[in-house]
Amino acid sequence: MEEGKGEVKHMLLAKFKEEVSEQQIEDCIKQYANLVNLIPSMKSFRWGRDVSQENLHQGITHVFESTFESTQGVAEYLSHPDHEAYGNILRPLLEKAITVDYHPTPVQL
Amino acid sequence: MEEGKGEVKHMLLAKFKEEVSEQQIEDCIKQYANLVNLIPSMKSFRWGRDVSQENLHQGITHVFESTFESTQGVAEYLSHPDHEAYGNILRPLLEKAITVDYHPTPVQL
Repeated sequence: MEEGKGEVKHMLLAKFKEEVSEQQIEDCIKQYANLVNLIPSMKSFRWGRDVSQENLHQGITHVFESTFESTQGVAEYLSHPDHEAYGNILRPLLEKAITVDYHPTPVQL
Repeated sequence: MEEGKGEVKHMLLAKFKEEVSEQQIEDCIKQYANLVNLIPSMKSFRWGRDVSQENLHQGITHVFESTFESTQGVAEYLSHPDHEAYGNILRPLLEKAITVDYHPTPVQL
């Protein structure tokens, strides 16, 4: 089955530590969003709290969705100094982090 | 910080069992996509293999992204007999499954 190429969704599923305040989370999300202004290959950013109704979220509290034009763009992002600096801010606030990337592919039935 | 309402992304991150063949996975994805034709509240479906370059995917092999107009739409989907029947096909093939839902929210900086 043919899979999409090109556009990549870079998804971070995160659980913030209990002691992290809502204000800290808000600041953190704004800094994440600002990476779009700093890293040319990062095309857009959206976020949301987990609102799932099944009990399969495994403690995840927040989803961060970044969009890139290619896997090369993700590589440029990962090695960019502004991403690395932000990682050093974000990581200590998280109890859990899962990152997956995928080419969003529709299915022709 | 104001979070989006309305549209919900329902994300399933999955790891298929080692013994599941590529043909079985393909059939499984097509059946998942076909739920759009069976469940009115499910508006669209996309999928992709994990192509992440960091080692933070925790074994996840596939991402399934479904879109709904509201959390009520997700609730209708979850309780729909065709979703339940599909779950009975999918679950035995998976070693791991994480489900999160979120309202994709842009950030105004």
